[in-house]
Amino acid sequence: MAKKEFEAAHFDEQRYVKNVAVDNVIFGYHDRELKVLLQRPNFLSKWTVAGGYILKTESIEEAAHNIAFMRTGLKGLFLEQFRSFGNPARTKDEWQEIKKVFEGAGVTPPPDSWIQDYSVSIAFYTLTAFSLVKVQKAAIDEAIDWWPVSQLPAMLFDHALIVEEALKALRRDIYHYPIGYELLPEKFTLPEIHSLYETILGKALDNRNFTRKLMSTGIITKLDETRSIGAHRSPYLYKFEKKKYDAALKEGIFLGF
Amino acid sequence: MAKKEFEAAHFDEQRYVKNVAVDNVIFGYHDRELKVLLQRPNFLSKWTVAGGYILKTESIEEAAHNIAFMRTGLKGLFLEQFRSFGNPARTKDEWQEIKKVFEGAGVTPPPDSWIQDYSVSIAFYTLTAFSLVKVQKAAIDEAIDWWPVSQLPAMLFDHALIVEEALKALRRDIYHYPIGYELLPEKFTLPEIHSLYETILGKALDNRNFTRKLMSTGIITKLDETRSIGAHRSPYLYKFEKKKYDAALKEGIFLGF
Repeated sequence: MAKKEFEAAHFDEQRYVKNVAVDNVIFGYHDRELKVLLQRPNFLSKWTVAGGYILKTESIEEAAHNIAFMRTGLKGLFLEQFRSFGNPARTKDEWQEIKKVFEGAGVTPPPDSWIQDYSVSIAFYTLTAFSLVKVQKAAIDEAIDWWPVSQLPAMLFDHALIVEEALKALRRDIYHYPIGYELLPEKFTLPEIHSLYETILGKALDNRNFTRKLMSTGIITKLDETRSIGAHRSPYLYKFEKKKYDAALKEGIFLGF
Repeated sequence: MAKKEFEAAHFDEQRYVKNVAVDNVIFGYHDRELKVLLQRPNFLSKWTVAGGYILKTESIEEAAHNIAFMRTGLKGLFLEQFRSFGNPARTKDEWQEIKKVFEGAGVTPPPDSWIQDYSVSIAFYTLTAFSLVKVQKAAIDEAIDWWPVSQLPAMLFDHALIVEEALKALRRDIYHYPIGYELLPEKFTLPEIHSLYETILGKALDNRNFTRKLMSTGIITKLDETRSIGAHRSPYLYKFEKKKYDAALKEGIFLGF
């Protein structure tokens, strides 16, 4: 990354909202596992969730969308804000680490820069279709990869807590909003959506009860189509009813599985 | 408020986290109504939720507790963060209004102060025992009062939206955390707690189903005591099992009424 670009991105006090960052926990679902897209910044050994600063010309939601776009190549993803994090110690202890990223790019942060002062993180989670994501490094990333939420690497600052709280929020929200449109293929079987919900919640859900509640919402429809998955096993395929799904997203539903 | 105190509170760039405020939607329950504690700042006609800035020496949660203490006289209240609000327009349009508050105190904000720049609000809601609250004005309040959430006055900035979102969050959280310890008297009848939940959710809840689910959590116990509420009507009193209640708060429960 050019030195000038780096400086513009981080030290322009007029351009960015001071003392605030946006972090975005990007979730994907693959091989019956919930995964999260993490980066390891240049010169560091620890990983971070996707993050960035807020331009004074944009909303915090726009900042979160831009951060997701930078790492996934996708726009307009489903994202939800879940919590902000802020206390005097959260980034200070590891500021020396971050300094390496700047110094490695040939830039010395001014000692009074807001960058190394109290930092509030406004955190979002984003749901993505794993197979559509074109994972891409931002300029400060040395590495970027999907990690299973159950096996996270060593993480910078309080980012392990941020992922943990994102997962808690997703587990809570799954009862109030339809979730799956972004995470499943266009056509899916009932065992597939059942497995997705069990994976996210981290617990078994009674099959009959789950199916009954889900069908009662009208957000999925059975297709006149089956998929062969073995001898004598051809379960029906289903798809989301986009209009009802979007209405349920907007108005909320209540799914007490 | 002394001019000096006012300046220290708002223009000390070293003392406060810039570009960020904390707003706290303080709920109380009285006469079968959910109410919110609002202030009308000096010289203004519109009302606000309780708010303030974050000292660089405190966490955002401590700031929220301090804001609640300043208006209720109570410490250690149950509070929950629910969402942050931030976009270029949210406070700018009404900055001229806020200027009146400052000018009324004989203070002219520096034109480049972060106070009138992009402002992120980190919003919390707080649950209080209505009868224990000693409502008290802060220095900038001309008036302070409880308002029914269904009949809010004209509100400054996006504070009507902040109350609306706080209520949505409370309605969502009520399924995942026990709620009531702060809002009900120490001893209460089943119709009273049933009525509290119906009031918060804004909808009727089947009586038998509600009681069955609530009792199954173990968070309330029947006392060997009744209250006479009319001829031949003496319902049993109940109380919260504080240990189980606190465990449920910490671990979460799931109440699908």
